[in-house]
Order: sequence, then C-alpha cells, then structure tokens
Amino acid sequence: MKPVNIGILGLGTVGKGTVEVLNHNAEEISRRLGRDVNVFMVSTRNVENARRICSEQTLMTTDPFEVVKHPEVDVVVELFGGTEIAKDLVLEAINQGKHVVTANKKLLAEYGNEIFAKAEEKNVMVQFEAAVAGGIPIIKALREGLAANNIRSIVGIINGTSNFILSEMREKGSSFADVLKQAQELGYAEADPTFDIEGHDAGHKITIMSALAFGTPVNFNACYLEGISKLDSRDIKYAEELGYRIKLLGITRKTGKGIELRVHPTLIPEVRLIANVNGVMNAVRVDADMVGETMYYGAGAGSLPTASAVVADIMDISRLITADTGNRVPPLAFQSGEVKEQVILPMDEVVSSYYLRVQVDDEPGVMAQITKLLADEKVSIEALIQKGVIDQSTAEIVILTHSTIEKRVKAVIAGIEQLPCVRGGVTMIRMESLHGRNG
Amino acid sequence: MKPVNIGILGLGTVGKGTVEVLNHNAEEISRRLGRDVNVFMVSTRNVENARRICSEQTLMTTDPFEVVKHPEVDVVVELFGGTEIAKDLVLEAINQGKHVVTANKKLLAEYGNEIFAKAEEKNVMVQFEAAVAGGIPIIKALREGLAANNIRSIVGIINGTSNFILSEMREKGSSFADVLKQAQELGYAEADPTFDIEGHDAGHKITIMSALAFGTPVNFNACYLEGISKLDSRDIKYAEELGYRIKLLGITRKTGKGIELRVHPTLIPEVRLIANVNGVMNAVRVDADMVGETMYYGAGAGSLPTASAVVADIMDISRLITADTGNRVPPLAFQSGEVKEQVILPMDEVVSSYYLRVQVDDEPGVMAQITKLLADEKVSIEALIQKGVIDQSTAEIVILTHSTIEKRVKAVIAGIEQLPCVRGGVTMIRMESLHGRNG
Repeated sequence: MKPVNIGILGLGTVGKGTVEVLNHNAEEISRRLGRDVNVFMVSTRNVENARRICSEQTLMTTDPFEVVKHPEVDVVVELFGGTEIAKDLVLEAINQGKHVVTANKKLLAEYGNEIFAKAEEKNVMVQFEAAVAGGIPIIKALREGLAANNIRSIVGIINGTSNFILSEMREKGSSFADVLKQAQELGYAEADPTFDIEGHDAGHKITIMSALAFGTPVNFNACYLEGISKLDSRDIKYAEELGYRIKLLGITRKTGKGIELRVHPTLIPEVRLIANVNGVMNAVRVDADMVGETMYYGAGAGSLPTASAVVADIMDISRLITADTGNRVPPLAFQSGEVKEQVILPMDEVVSSYYLRVQVDDEPGVMAQITKLLADEKVSIEALIQKGVIDQSTAEIVILTHSTIEKRVKAVIAGIEQLPCVRGGVTMIRMESLHGRNG
Repeated sequence: MKPVNIGILGLGTVGKGTVEVLNHNAEEISRRLGRDVNVFMVSTRNVENARRICSEQTLMTTDPFEVVKHPEVDVVVELFGGTEIAKDLVLEAINQGKHVVTANKKLLAEYGNEIFAKAEEKNVMVQFEAAVAGGIPIIKALREGLAANNIRSIVGIINGTSNFILSEMREKGSSFADVLKQAQELGYAEADPTFDIEGHDAGHKITIMSALAFGTPVNFNACYLEGISKLDSRDIKYAEELGYRIKLLGITRKTGKGIELRVHPTLIPEVRLIANVNGVMNAVRVDADMVGETMYYGAGAGSLPTASAVVADIMDISRLITADTGNRVPPLAFQSGEVKEQVILPMDEVVSSYYLRVQVDDEPGVMAQITKLLADEKVSIEALIQKGVIDQSTAEIVILTHSTIEKRVKAVIAGIEQLPCVRGGVTMIRMESLHGRNG
C-alpha cells in the first residue's frame, strides 16, 4: 500500500520523539500497518537541527502553514502546543481536508467543540491520544474499549509533576518548596510550574475525559481547579497516619444532579491501587456500570512515551482513511448529534467527605464548640483526633467527616474560624473512598 | 444506519451477560455507534429460559449451526467455550462470511492459527477482547494503543481464581486446601479447579498475548505451565518477610535467544504496583521500548465485565464492516504475511532469579556444603537466611539467587537434594524484579 504522508508541526520534545519512534520502529510499524508512515514535511524554527534527525527526503519549512496546505500531506501532526497559532493551524488543516493528530490538551479542552465541529463538516479525523496521560492509551479505552458501558466516574493522577512532588513530600517529609526546587533541577517541573502545580494541566485532561465519558461538549471553564502549592507536609503526614495518601486528582462523575468536574488534592485510602502510583507516573481509574472498575497506568509525559501515543493515532488514521466516514469512531466517543450539554455541578453542590485541620487553644470546651458547629450543619464525624501539640497552649485537631454536601462543610469552616479558641484558618482537603463494586 | 444483526451461540454466564449489556445500555451503545445492535438469533439448550431475557423478535434455536448459517446474521458471537463444537461453529461461521466475536481463549490458543487463516481467506474479522483478562481492554491496547512500540515483555495476573487463593493465603496464613474450599463456596473456583489452579487458563491467555506482542503464530504447546497447588503458605510468609509477594504470573518476553512463554508462581517485590493487585482482580503489565511500562487493571472474569468486552468487539466490527478489508487491524496485530515463527525458549534456557527453600540438619558445615554447590554452578547469592527451626535438630534455609540460567539452578537443586544433611526436597520459586525504565 501507498505510504501515508505526515506533516509535523513543531520539532520540540514530542516532535523529536515522534520522528525517533517512526525511525526506530519503522519496520515494526510497517509490519503491523501494512504500509509505511512517511515524514513528508516538517515545520521547524531550526532547519539545521531538524535535518539531523529527519531523512533527506523530508521537506523542511519554517512556515507551518506550508505544511498544512501541502497537497501531498495526508495527516497533520500538531505539536506546537498553546492555543494561538496552534488553533489556526489545526482549523486550516481541517479546512484543507487533512486529518489531524494533536497532543495539545489545552487546545482541545478550550476549543475542542469548534475543532470537532469543523472536522465533522470536512469529514476528517482528529485524534488526540497523546493529549491525556501521555503514553497510556486511555482515550482509546474510553472511546472504544469501554464503549458498551455507561461510565460512572473517572479519577486520574494525570499530572506527573504534581505526583512527583507529593510522592517526595510523603517519602522524605520535605516541604512543598524544597521538593519543587528539586523537581525543577531534575527537569520534572518547569521554571514556571504554575500550569502543573495549580491544576490547569490536570484540568485540561479531565475536561477532555469528562466529555468523552458522558457525551458532552468540552467545558474547561466549568472545571474547578485547586493545586498543591498550599499543601503542608504536616497534612501529608497526618493523612498517612490515618491510612490515607494525598494525591492531586482530576475527578469527573455523573450524579443525579449533574456532572462533577474538578481537580484538587484528595485523600484516598492507601489500600486502593491508585494510591500506590508514585513519582512522575500517571494512572486513570474508570468506574463503569458493566465492567466495574478498571485502571490504566503508565508514563504521562516524556518525549518517547508521548510520541508512542502520537504514532498510534497516526496508525489508526492510516487504517481508517479509506473507511466510510459514517462508521468512524467519533472524536468525543458519541455521535455528534448525541453530544449534549449537561449541568456541571458547582462545588457547593458536590458531595464528598472532608479532612479538616485546625489549631486551637488547648483548653476545656473546645471540642464541644467544634462538634456543635458540625452537628448544627448535620455533618457527621468519622474521626476527630487531637494530632499534635504545637506549643504549651496550642493543640492541633484533625476531623474526618462522612459524606456531605460541600456547602455545609464550608459553613462549618466559617463557623470554626470565628471561634475565639481557634488560631488561624481551617485547612480543608477533600476525600474520596473509591470503593467500587470491585473493591 | 441499519442495525447490525448478531447471532449468539450459548446463553451461559457470558451469553446472558451479553444480552443484558445490550439491553441495559442500548441507548448508550446506539448514541456511540450511530446504529443499533440487534440480537437477531440465539442458540440455546433451554429456549424457555432464553425467552425470559431476549426480546420477542429474537429468533431461538437449539441448533447452533442454524445461527451460523442464517443469511441475516452479520456477526456470530461464540460463547460455547471448549474446542470441539466451538471450533466447527467458528470455522463454519467464517466460511459463511460472518464476522466472529469470541471469548474462547482455549480455542484461540490451541487453534487460532487455523481460524485466523480462514478469516483472512474469507475477509472477515475475528475479535476476542473477552478471551484475555475479561473486561480489561488489553487486546486493544496491544494491537492498537501500543502499535508504535516494540513490545519487550508482558507479565500478567490473568487468573482470578488463583489470585484470590494466593491473596487469601497471604492475608490469613491459611493453607492452599482451605482457601480453595472457601473459593469454591464463594463461586470463585470451579468444582474441578484444575484448569485455573494448574495454570492452563493463564497459559491460554499469555499464549494469545505473546503472539500479538511479537508477531508469531499462537503456540500453546510451547507454553510452560506450573500452577499454585503445591505452594506452601510458609513460602508466602517467608516471601513477605523478604519484601516480596507470590503471584501466579503469565510471562512472555523477547530475548536475544528466543521468546519466553511461561506460567508459574513468582516472587515479585511488594513495591511494584502489580504486586498489590489482590483478590479476583486481573492486571497486565506491558513493557515496550518507546512508552516504557504500562499496566491495565480490572475484572478478569464475571458475566457483565466479560460481556463488556464482547459488546465492545461487536461495536468495533459494526464500525469496520464497511471498511476496506486491507485496512483493518489484523487479528494478531501484525499483517498475516509478517507473522513469523520464533524460537520459544525451553525453561532450562530461561534466565531468572530464584527463591530456594530447604530443610537441613541443624549442624555445622551445612551452609558451607550448600554454598559450595551454588559456587560450583556459578550461581551467585543475593541472600541466604536461616528462616525457621522446625524442631531441635532441623533448620530451614531460604536462598535468594541473582539472575542465572535455569539449568544451573536445577543442577544446584539436584546437588542439594543429594546432600546427607538435607531432609526432603528443595522448594524452588522463580523471581522477577520487574524494574523497568519507569521504576
């Protein structure tokens, strides 16, 4: 069969990895696909560097629109990142009738609806396995492997930087600031780490998975984002003493009232498999009505793991290029006419359990005052423990609540913070039990 | 679009589950697929029972060949199990130009080559996601999600019965016989559990995955099988004290000398994620050159989880029915002309590390005799520990070796068993470190 011609936009980390995967495993890929994948054209700022890794036949340009418009390019691989020029390039590629592979989670979480609509109009495929959890084939699992299920929830460790920081904080008892510095030295965190540690990156990924799972448009603006930069290593230690680990989770869940869509640090029981995913690794746990709980684990970032997903998408497209367009797997898993807006629950309406920590005067009556506030809001207590004595006159209390609606917990916290015996604010971290049908 | 008509052979556990998934999630499935899946015809021994779960429109027969030959059936779903009538049915279905979905691991591991050749000749698809690890979409991951990789190894907990028994033996310190009885009462083990506990079932599954991973024909006869029925709870306890868990693993690995293909109890470090997969759950860990380590976890059996995979296959076929046949994903992942015989390593040539346990006279010089035997065969020792004193004159020794070729260890064992100070035989359990690029 005729080779499939790809045009790569951007030869950064993932772009170089894509060329390397295609070169290194050319034979393996061709043995599976029955045709070659040809890097026909590349757009890059540095043609000389690009020449070193691409074959002599590969056309080079500094103008990415040349790639997008070239009549012999079958598939455009967008690895620019960001949403400005990348969006124009992807839309123009689709307009030119090219299929698109992208690793750009931000682009899809923010502009996916426009892009998918355009792709449908032009009968082309947009594939994005690399946009979520790097090399883990989770998009394929959600769109195809679990297609017979009503998906109930997805819970993911989907930001490697944050998971590395939390793992180190737990293992070494170090502070957030110290571990962040170490992560930056190791190349696991950017010079400006905001995007990773404040939950934006995880938010883009859970937004995309939520749309795929529940048949809704992508709606990143509705995603609640809370990062790990304010976490105290003391909370990680207390959580561990109580049998929990703290992980930055992306969570999306279908409830009777609407869809939960949120990213925040979360206590999970240490006996759950996902609680034992450490370092920069990612894992996504899916709960679905027929299959129960499944989990997908692997490298969530890095040049070659991400490129592994990019090339798998190129291979999928190569196979489906000649299929009738009505029978392709739709980009958001559901037929476009079946993608429907659903209410995204505001955080006040989310039901969860909670870890609360507060410092108080070490004197009689304090516990009574706090438990009364909880009782007034009908928040029931799973555990109330005096964890530490800060100094002679100050004690530290940790409360674990049972499930309750978040607005009640916020009312309790407001009440506690007004008590004269309380020093400073209340630390609140959400908890997820994650016990499913399969335990 | 016109509904796809399926004919189901056999309404046992998985057959009933398949009908239930299709009924319960009919709307969800149609929203994804853009067409309905219609249970057109069913073959069953008990038509009256079948009537209770199928719609009035579904045709019923007690003759499965009627289903296979019916001109309006598009996809035959073979859920008979076994290899006698099931093989004839599948071949006849293919002969009739029907696509086939099967959950029958034994059929594919033993007769897959014949079936896949026939399917190619007739331009039909044979899908078998449910044959390996139940509801976990591992076949799709191997054939498509990881298609850009050279797969290096697959290690799987792929028999839920055995994993339940080993988990219980570890947690409760019970004997194999006691836990087996309990598993039978809970319905986790068959009245005749041989197929599960002696490794046959895991062998079928790892044989299929090995072929998919390395582009070889299926070769179940070459798969080494060793079950868990001879495991002593004492070994599980000692392993745990040394930081290991014992799991029944299916293992396949590409080496310079050939392919390893084996099922046996295995010590793995307790820090590995897969070591923490307990109860009846399954997990498959894949090590591949570009993506590194990925792992897939979920229910490996059960009516609805298995049916989830069956229906996903039906949906895949429905999408590809109109695709040109040259562009479909080949059943064994590689184009048929690229599926090539490779040497399967005999166990004597496999390189592993080993756990050895032996009871000896508690007297001076014993250690020297044993370590000399190890040194003579150039087997180096990671640890040599006196674990227990059985009675006043008998001690128990556990040895962990470094990596070595199995025939050397067997020579050591033969030597040890001939020492006058040794009581009884040597217990040998293989070990896998499972440290990959991703830790």
